[in-house]
Amino acid sequence: MDFSSFLTSLATSFIIFVETREQRNLLSESDSERVGSLGRGLRTRNPCAWIKEALTSSEQDVISMSGVDTAVYFVYLSTVLGILVLASVLLLPVLLPVAATDDNVKLQSQSTSNGTFNDLDKLSMGNITEKSSRLWAFLLATYWISLVVYYLLWKAYKHVSALRATALMSPEVRVEQFAVLVRDIPPPLEGQTRKEQVDSYFKAIYPDTFYRSLVITDNKEVNNIWEEMEGYRKKLVRAETVYLESKTNGNPEGTKPTNKTGFLGLLGEKNSIQFYNEKINELIPKLESEQKVTLKEKQQASAIIFFTSRVTAASASQSLHAQLVDTWTVMDAPQPSELLWKNLPINYYERQMRQYVVYVIVALMIFFYMIPIGIISAFTTLENLEKLLPFLKSVLEQKAVRTVLGAYLPQLALIIFLAILPKFLLFLSKTEGIPSESHAVRAASGKYFYFTVFNVFIGVTIGGTLFSSFKTIEKHPSQIVNLLASSLPSNATFFLTYVALKFFVGYGLELSRIVPLIIFHLKKKYLCKTETEVKEAWAPGDLSYATRFPGDMLILTIVLCYSVIAPIILVFGVIYFGLGWLILRNQALKVYVPTYESYGRMWPHMYLRIVATLVLFQLTMFGYFGVKKFVYAPILIPLPILSLIFAFVCHKKFYRAFQSTSLEVAASHLKETPTMDQIFGSYVQPSLSHEKNEDDQFEDALSQVSRSCRCARDDQGSHN
Amino acid sequence: MDFSSFLTSLATSFIIFVETREQRNLLSESDSERVGSLGRGLRTRNPCAWIKEALTSSEQDVISMSGVDTAVYFVYLSTVLGILVLASVLLLPVLLPVAATDDNVKLQSQSTSNGTFNDLDKLSMGNITEKSSRLWAFLLATYWISLVVYYLLWKAYKHVSALRATALMSPEVRVEQFAVLVRDIPPPLEGQTRKEQVDSYFKAIYPDTFYRSLVITDNKEVNNIWEEMEGYRKKLVRAETVYLESKTNGNPEGTKPTNKTGFLGLLGEKNSIQFYNEKINELIPKLESEQKVTLKEKQQASAIIFFTSRVTAASASQSLHAQLVDTWTVMDAPQPSELLWKNLPINYYERQMRQYVVYVIVALMIFFYMIPIGIISAFTTLENLEKLLPFLKSVLEQKAVRTVLGAYLPQLALIIFLAILPKFLLFLSKTEGIPSESHAVRAASGKYFYFTVFNVFIGVTIGGTLFSSFKTIEKHPSQIVNLLASSLPSNATFFLTYVALKFFVGYGLELSRIVPLIIFHLKKKYLCKTETEVKEAWAPGDLSYATRFPGDMLILTIVLCYSVIAPIILVFGVIYFGLGWLILRNQALKVYVPTYESYGRMWPHMYLRIVATLVLFQLTMFGYFGVKKFVYAPILIPLPILSLIFAFVCHKKFYRAFQSTSLEVAASHLKETPTMDQIFGSYVQPSLSHEKNEDDQFEDALSQVSRSCRCARDDQGSHN
Repeated sequence: MDFSSFLTSLATSFIIFVETREQRNLLSESDSERVGSLGRGLRTRNPCAWIKEALTSSEQDVISMSGVDTAVYFVYLSTVLGILVLASVLLLPVLLPVAATDDNVKLQSQSTSNGTFNDLDKLSMGNITEKSSRLWAFLLATYWISLVVYYLLWKAYKHVSALRATALMSPEVRVEQFAVLVRDIPPPLEGQTRKEQVDSYFKAIYPDTFYRSLVITDNKEVNNIWEEMEGYRKKLVRAETVYLESKTNGNPEGTKPTNKTGFLGLLGEKNSIQFYNEKINELIPKLESEQKVTLKEKQQASAIIFFTSRVTAASASQSLHAQLVDTWTVMDAPQPSELLWKNLPINYYERQMRQYVVYVIVALMIFFYMIPIGIISAFTTLENLEKLLPFLKSVLEQKAVRTVLGAYLPQLALIIFLAILPKFLLFLSKTEGIPSESHAVRAASGKYFYFTVFNVFIGVTIGGTLFSSFKTIEKHPSQIVNLLASSLPSNATFFLTYVALKFFVGYGLELSRIVPLIIFHLKKKYLCKTETEVKEAWAPGDLSYATRFPGDMLILTIVLCYSVIAPIILVFGVIYFGLGWLILRNQALKVYVPTYESYGRMWPHMYLRIVATLVLFQLTMFGYFGVKKFVYAPILIPLPILSLIFAFVCHKKFYRAFQSTSLEVAASHLKETPTMDQIFGSYVQPSLSHEKNEDDQFEDALSQVSRSCRCARDDQGSHN
Repeated sequence: MDFSSFLTSLATSFIIFVETREQRNLLSESDSERVGSLGRGLRTRNPCAWIKEALTSSEQDVISMSGVDTAVYFVYLSTVLGILVLASVLLLPVLLPVAATDDNVKLQSQSTSNGTFNDLDKLSMGNITEKSSRLWAFLLATYWISLVVYYLLWKAYKHVSALRATALMSPEVRVEQFAVLVRDIPPPLEGQTRKEQVDSYFKAIYPDTFYRSLVITDNKEVNNIWEEMEGYRKKLVRAETVYLESKTNGNPEGTKPTNKTGFLGLLGEKNSIQFYNEKINELIPKLESEQKVTLKEKQQASAIIFFTSRVTAASASQSLHAQLVDTWTVMDAPQPSELLWKNLPINYYERQMRQYVVYVIVALMIFFYMIPIGIISAFTTLENLEKLLPFLKSVLEQKAVRTVLGAYLPQLALIIFLAILPKFLLFLSKTEGIPSESHAVRAASGKYFYFTVFNVFIGVTIGGTLFSSFKTIEKHPSQIVNLLASSLPSNATFFLTYVALKFFVGYGLELSRIVPLIIFHLKKKYLCKTETEVKEAWAPGDLSYATRFPGDMLILTIVLCYSVIAPIILVFGVIYFGLGWLILRNQALKVYVPTYESYGRMWPHMYLRIVATLVLFQLTMFGYFGVKKFVYAPILIPLPILSLIFAFVCHKKFYRAFQSTSLEVAASHLKETPTMDQIFGSYVQPSLSHEKNEDDQFEDALSQVSRSCRCARDDQGSHN
C-alpha cells in the first residue's frame, strides 16, 4: 500500500465518522421526547457540549452512573493513553528526524533496482542503515517506553485497588456481601434433607452469624410454567393497551382484540383479554404445585448461605471448609442478577474436566480456525449455490447481484465466523461451569484476546513469510523472532490504516449507536405496544467492555510493537485511545446501564495483558535490532526479565485483594442494619416466589419476603 | 566391583550391625536403673521382645507417644515398603528367569574380548539382547510399578489427610489453634502505640472473638540478662548439690565450694553459694527494668493474636486482612516451642528477597560444591600441613600416622562438608525468614533431598561419562537421557552395595544409639552434677525424620530406578525399608521425644518427591529401552504424563487441607472451655515473664498468668 492509498482510506474513514455522527443527531432529536429519560440519549445537537461534559465528568460520576467496572475500564483507557502520550513526547521529536535523515530505504531500493518505496517507510527504523550508531536512539526509546509502562501500570494498579476497596467498603447494603455460594455438597445422610444438612453444617461452624440457607433447585420445569404465564401476562397487558387505544380512536366502545384459538390459529375467535385471563388462571395452580415439588424434591448439591455479618461472609468465602477440597467448596456469592443458576450444581471434577476440554477446543480454534472456514469457502461458490437452491436461479442470474455475491461469497464463512465468535466464546466459557455471568464474560474476553492477538497481529505479520520459509524455521526454531522482526516494517503501513479505520469507523458507529437505533425504531413501529415493551426495546445494555477490551488490546499491541520501528503510529494510537476515552465516557454516563458489578475484577487481566504486550514488544525489538546487526542489541535482554519481575511483584502485592474481599474492608461500618429478609429474598428466583408461597423451605414467618421484594427481583431476575 | 567383593562388603556390614547391637545391650543394661524412665531405653536383652512390641504397636500408640508427624513418617515408610513388596512379588519371579536365560553379556564380553563380567550382571536387563521380544516383560513391569505407586500413594494421602484432621479435631486444648501470627504491620499512627494499633485493628474485624494480642518485641538485651541469670541459677543449684554431697562423704560440716573471683579467675576466693546468690540479686532489678524497656520501646511490626474460638483463628489465618497483601500478613500461629522469634519482624519484601538469595546459594552449592572442596583438598597435603604447622613435624614423621593421614587428608574437606551440610541447610532455611522451626526443617529437608539425589544418584550414574562426552551433549541435549540410561547397568552393583551398607551400618548405629550413649556416659561422669543436668545430657531429641527422609528418598530413587533393570535390588530395598520401619518404630515408641508437632505437614513434600522419583524412573526406563533399540519403547510415553496428572489431582484434592486447618475440623467440640489466660501465657517468652511482671502490656488483672504457667513454659521455652 503506498502513501496515497493510505491517505484515501484515511479520508474515507473520516467521512464515515462524520456522517454517522450527523445521522445519529437527526435520529436522536426526533426521539428525545419519547425515549428521553429511558435511554439517557444525547439531547443537544451542539457537538461541543457532550465533549465538555465528558471531559469535566469525574471518576465518581462514572462510578455512580455506571459502576466500578466501567470506571476501571476508564483507568485502563487513560493508562494506555498516558503511556502512548509519554512515548510520543520523546519518540516523535527524536526518532522521526533521526530516521528521516538516513537513507537505507533509498539505497536498498536502488541496489535491488526494485524502485518502490513510500514516504512512510522513510520515517521508520527501516530507513536506518545496518550497524549505524543512530540505532542507539531507538534502543534508548525501547527502554523509555518500558519504564513508562512500568510506572503508569504501577500507579494504575494501586488506584484500581483503592477503587475496589472503596466500593466494597460502601455503607450501603449490597446483598452479595452477605452471602457465600457453596458447591459440591456431599450426599446428605439417610433421612436428612439437603436443607437440614446444609443448615446443621453451617450452624456448627458459624453459630452466631449464620442466618439461613437457600438450597439451589432444578428449576427447569417451574421456569417453563412461569415463563409461559409471564408470556400470557405480557400479552394481556398488550391486549388491554390495544383495547384502550381503540377506545380513544373514535370508537367509544372500543374494539376488543380477538384471538384465533382453533387449529393452527386459523379457526375460532375469542376475546383476547378474557382468553389470557383464563390461561393465567389455569396456570396458577400448576405453578404452585410445581413450586412445591421443586423445592422439596429437586434440591441440588449447591446452596447460597446467608450471614448476618459482612466479615463472616468475606472470611468464609476464603476459608477451606471441608478437609477434602472437592466437597463443600465455598466462594463469594455473585450478585443475584448475574448468577448462572444452571452451572451451580455441576460438581468439582466435572468443572475441571469441562474447563480443560474448553481450553483444548479454544486452542485448536485459535490455531486451526482457517481450515474449516477455508473448506466452507471453497464450497460456497455461485455454482454450488445455484445447484443447492435452484429457486434462486433467476435472482442469481442478474449481473449486479452476481458481481456483489461473487466478491463476498468466498469470505462469507469468515465474516459470519468473526461475527459470532464473541458469542461463541461466551457460550464456551459458560459451559466451563463458571457460576457467574461476569466471570464467564472475563473468561470469554481472555479467549478473544488470545484469538485476536495471535491471528491478526502475529498472523498478518508473519503471514505468508512463515509458510514460505517453513523449512528454515524447522531447522532453527530460534529464527522465528528474527523472521517476525524482519517482516515488521513492511507491515507498518497496513497496520497504520487498520488503526485509523478502527477509530473512525468503529467509534463513529459507537457514538451514533446507529445499528441499535435502527433496530429500536423498527421495533417501536411494528412490535411494541406497551410502555414496558418500548422500554425493553430501547434498553441499551451495558458497556460490554469485556468484548471491547480485546479489540483495544489488539490496537495497543500493534501500536506498542511499532512504536519504535515506525513512531508515526503513536499519533494514531493516541487518537484511538483519546477518542475512545471521550466517546465511551459520554456513552457510559448517558447511554449504557450496567447489568452487574464485579468491583473491578477485570483489572488484573487487563494489567497482565498489557505486560504481555510489553514483553512481545521487547522481544520484537530485540529481534529487530538483531536484523539490523546492531552489536549492542543484548543490552535489551534485561527488559523482558524486568517485565516478568514487575508482573510478579504486582501480582503478589495486589492480586489477592481482587480475588476476594479483604476483611478490613468488609469490617467497615454500614449505614443501616441490613434487612436479612430482603437480602435472602433478592436471591429467590421469580419463578419460585409466587405470592402464595408458604413452603417448607421458606418458613412461615419469612414468607412475606418474597412479596416485599418482588420489585427488586424483577429487575435482577430477567438475566437468568 | 565383582561379585566376591560385593559379598565381602555385605558380610562386613552385617558384622558391624550385629556388633553394635551387642554393645548397645551391654551399655543399656548398666544404665537401665539410672536412666530408666528418662530415656525410655531398651530394658530387655531379648532381641525378639522389642521386635514383637514394635510389630504389635498400633498407629494410635505412635501418635500418642510421638505425635502425628512421626506417624506420618511411618505411613511414608510403609507405603514405600508396600510399593517395593508388590513390585518384588511380580518382578522377581518373572524378570530374573527372563534375564538369566538370555546371554547378551556373554556375547558382548566375547566380542569386545574384554572378558570381565560378573554374575550379578547376568540377572539384569543388561543381559537381554537388543530388540529382543523379551523386553516386553520389562516394559510391562514398568507399568506395573507405576500403577502400584499410584494406588498406594493415593491410599496413603487419603489416610494421612484423615490423620491430620483427627489430630486437629482433638478435644484437648492446643494453644496454637487459638492464635494467629500477624506480620508486616504498617507503622502505627502518630500518638498510637503498636499495641493499641493492633488491638483496635482486630477488635474492629472480630468484635466478638478477639481476646488479646501479644506484640513481638526485640528481646536481645533482655534475653542476654535472663540467660546470664539462668546460668547463675544453674551454677547455684550445682554448688548446692556439691555441698550436700560433700556433707554425706564423711565430713558432717561439708566443704563449701569456692570460686576464684579475681583477675582471670586466679586470685581471690569466695563462697560459691553466696557468690551466685549475690550475682542473681544484682541481676533481678536490671532484668526488670530491661523488661519494661523492652515491652514499651522495643515493639516490632509483628504480633500474635489470640481468639476465643478455634474456628475464628482457623478462618483468620486463611483470610486476606488488608487490601494490600504486603501488610497485615496473617498466618497460622506455630506452637510456642517452635517459634523462631528473631524471624518474626522481618518484613515481606525482605523475606522474599532472602528466599531467592538462599535458593540461588543452594542451587550454586548443588551444582558446584565440588569446586571449593577440590581446591581445599589440593592444599591440604602432608607437605602443606608440615609447612603451616611446623610443631606437628615430629608427629607427622612417624610412618603409621603418615599412611593414615595420607589416605584421608584429601577427602577431609569433603567429609567435613557432608557432615555439616544438613546443619548448614537448616541455617540457610532459617535465614529465609521462616517463622517456625518445623517449617524451616521442612525447607532444609527439601534442599537436602535435591542435593543428595542430584549429586549421588545422577552424579555417580553419569559421573565421568558426562564430562568425557561433553561435546556430544552440547550439540544434542536430548542425548542426556540416553547417556544416563546406557551407563545405568554398570552402576547397579555399586548401588546394591550402597543400599546394603546403608541399612546394616546405618540402622545398626541407629538401634544402638552408640554415639549418643558414649557422649552421655562421658558427660555423666565428668560434667553432670544435678538431676536436671543428667536429664538434659540424656535427652534424645526428636526422630528428626526431616533429615532421615532425604536419605530414605535417595535409597528409594536408587531402588526404583534399578527395579526393572536389575530386579535383585528390590530385595535390598525391601530389607532397608522393612528394617527401617521396625527399628524406628521401636525408637519412636521408646527413645525419641518430639519437640514440636506440625500435624503431618511434611506429607505433601514426601508424596511429591515420591512422584518425582517415579517420573525419573519412567524417563530412565524410556531412555534405556531406547538404548536397547526396542521399537515399542514409545508405549512408555503416557506414563510420565499420567504421573503428572496424578500429582496434580492429588495436589488439588488434598493439599489445601495441609496448608491450613479446615473449618469443619476447627468447629469440632472441645472437652473443656479453654483457659485463655493460659493460652496467652504459653506464648510469653520466659525472659519476659518475671514473677513481678506487671507491665503495661500485661494488664493488671491478667498479670498472674505469667506465674501460673511458668511450668508449662519452662518445657517449651528452652528451644527458642
